Amino acid sequence: MTSNFIYFDNSATTKPYKEVVDSFVKVSTDYFGNPSSLHRIGGEAEKLLSKGRKQIAEQLAVKPSEIIFTSGGTESNNLAVKGAALMHRNRGNHIITSAVEHASIKEPYKQLQELGFEVTILPVDDEGRVSVRELANAISDQTILVSVMHVNNEVGTIQPIEQIGALLTSYPKVLFHVDHIQGVGKVPLNLQKSHVDLCSFSGHKFHGLKGTGLLYVREGVTLSPLLTGGSQERKYRSGTENVAGAVALAKALRLTLENMDEQVPRILKLKETIIRGIQDIEEIVVHTPAVNSAPHIINFSVKGFKAEVFVHALEEKDIYVSTTSACSSKKKAGSSTLTAMGVPEEIAGSAIRISLSHENTIEEANFVVDAIKETVNKLREVMK
Amino acid sequence: MTSNFIYFDNSATTKPYKEVVDSFVKVSTDYFGNPSSLHRIGGEAEKLLSKGRKQIAEQLAVKPSEIIFTSGGTESNNLAVKGAALMHRNRGNHIITSAVEHASIKEPYKQLQELGFEVTILPVDDEGRVSVRELANAISDQTILVSVMHVNNEVGTIQPIEQIGALLTSYPKVLFHVDHIQGVGKVPLNLQKSHVDLCSFSGHKFHGLKGTGLLYVREGVTLSPLLTGGSQERKYRSGTENVAGAVALAKALRLTLENMDEQVPRILKLKETIIRGIQDIEEIVVHTPAVNSAPHIINFSVKGFKAEVFVHALEEKDIYVSTTSACSSKKKAGSSTLTAMGVPEEIAGSAIRISLSHENTIEEANFVVDAIKETVNKLREVMK
Repeated sequence: MTSNFIYFDNSATTKPYKEVVDSFVKVSTDYFGNPSSLHRIGGEAEKLLSKGRKQIAEQLAVKPSEIIFTSGGTESNNLAVKGAALMHRNRGNHIITSAVEHASIKEPYKQLQELGFEVTILPVDDEGRVSVRELANAISDQTILVSVMHVNNEVGTIQPIEQIGALLTSYPKVLFHVDHIQGVGKVPLNLQKSHVDLCSFSGHKFHGLKGTGLLYVREGVTLSPLLTGGSQERKYRSGTENVAGAVALAKALRLTLENMDEQVPRILKLKETIIRGIQDIEEIVVHTPAVNSAPHIINFSVKGFKAEVFVHALEEKDIYVSTTSACSSKKKAGSSTLTAMGVPEEIAGSAIRISLSHENTIEEANFVVDAIKETVNKLREVMK
Repeated sequence: MTSNFIYFDNSATTKPYKEVVDSFVKVSTDYFGNPSSLHRIGGEAEKLLSKGRKQIAEQLAVKPSEIIFTSGGTESNNLAVKGAALMHRNRGNHIITSAVEHASIKEPYKQLQELGFEVTILPVDDEGRVSVRELANAISDQTILVSVMHVNNEVGTIQPIEQIGALLTSYPKVLFHVDHIQGVGKVPLNLQKSHVDLCSFSGHKFHGLKGTGLLYVREGVTLSPLLTGGSQERKYRSGTENVAGAVALAKALRLTLENMDEQVPRILKLKETIIRGIQDIEEIVVHTPAVNSAPHIINFSVKGFKAEVFVHALEEKDIYVSTTSACSSKKKAGSSTLTAMGVPEEIAGSAIRISLSHENTIEEANFVVDAIKETVNKLREVMK
């Protein structure tokens, strides 16, 4: 192990690349102008912002004008969902999402419901996956928005985004939003091929900085802005642009996507090592689907043990994992994804998430397998 | 001069303190955990976030729980205005603001008007100041919100915040929001004494980082959140906290407020030097009020010359000033503050803003006076 602890909570947040931090410092210090200022100091900042936007667009094979910088994944999700629904409510008042979305999708849907929108929450199967047929059945002539995440943040299930996109081409009135936050750099997503209208990214989930994110808004799609004022970001997101953050985001995305082909097989090998190592332990149930799941997430329950107890037992070995999503972990609400998958409450309450990054090693994977075995044995003794 | 250019556009944005950038790097790199995570890595980040919040609260003489971190001034203003109005619309549907607010107040008010709120926009006198008596006359039993800025961003006029606050104590149903964004570190504001309920701050206007800001929310005041999800920031602002940004913001605020007593007289001297130097030029009209104006803003018109022409003429001498606010400068909309003050259109179209910081020197002030004189003479020749 290269560090004095093993960080296996990369779905909560990742360590930023050094190059990303360096870019942020360079831009903050040497190009501190306001991009809206007409003079050279502003112009230089504006140029860097445009360059960052262009680089991101190239990485995603979209147009620079389709990239809206935000303060992170939650803002991107809120802007997409509320912005689309409020903008197009004259077209219809029905909006659809799934039962396994992140809180930053669920809560905006709840707010829209309170505002009078009809909400359909698609159920998922025992692997946490929505059914494209059920989605098709749910669509009515009042439907204006479908929001389905790409990779589930708790168990790693990959949703059938391409098939949903294909289905929705028959419904030109329906906008398609994808929360790609857990998928970036782990599971490829072709925005064009999947007919995605809106797509959310969060910098700190792929070794960028907290406080940075973006929303892809397909050309021709209009939104009602959440933050209004100086009309920056094509009026969709007012506020002085975080130029250094945008440049840092472009760098994080480039480093992540460029190295994806090399890193994903390595990460996948760690995942397989861990699952193979723990699946035969009597008390363990693996929730992450065996196929069509992300390479970096492993969710399992240790039956009979409270998740918090297990997390802290691993922490004593300097291994950092999580119970449910970071956002939910303090609420002790349990995993809504597992519940939606039909996992009984007492098993869901024992669920542990290991989430990997390119920084993890095979030694760490083997170490955690041994640590889990030891911990189960030890706790088993205590329980007797 | 210590640098190869003179930056006189500090109301658009400021150069971050080196210590602020260093703090951001340290926290981003060494404390990258998600504050919501239950383990030590998350706990350390949470501790830093709490410490930053506490430091800020101490600087502002308020409670830590009253500080809500945001992504900047625009978000703070939007959250305050929309959050208060939407939360309390059952109490009344009348909201008040002034004619000289920043776009990030004006636009939210417009959006609220479209949602059915009655909006009163208070006029200002020829110095850009609202009348407390007119405000008192505008308040009805339907009024739920008054938003008035502390320091005008275009001309520097200080509004009678303390008197407004005193007036509003007679109207317990009315929330009082102050946009303090241009005032921080330049004009003291006592939140308690002025009976302020909500107050906006933007990091990059006081040598902090872009993408950081905060909203003071007085204890007992409730808001409808704009960004919902993981329930961070007392549910008023969901999203993984930008811990490094919060720590950097705390540092910028401390450095700014601690040095205020020493810096403000110095900045004021530069302002007086510039105004004294240019006011006798025949073509020049100074718009910044002689009394009750901020120490760092000088707004003046050079009659007969388009503002852009003058800005670029000064730029050739490596002096960076602005026309109107940065946000408005690309829209060529002219200064709405000057128009509200009754300045004729052709004079408003010639308005230049010089905005100072502690980094500016008396040599720079003298240099700009000479440069303005030279430029006027030169342009005068050309016009003949």
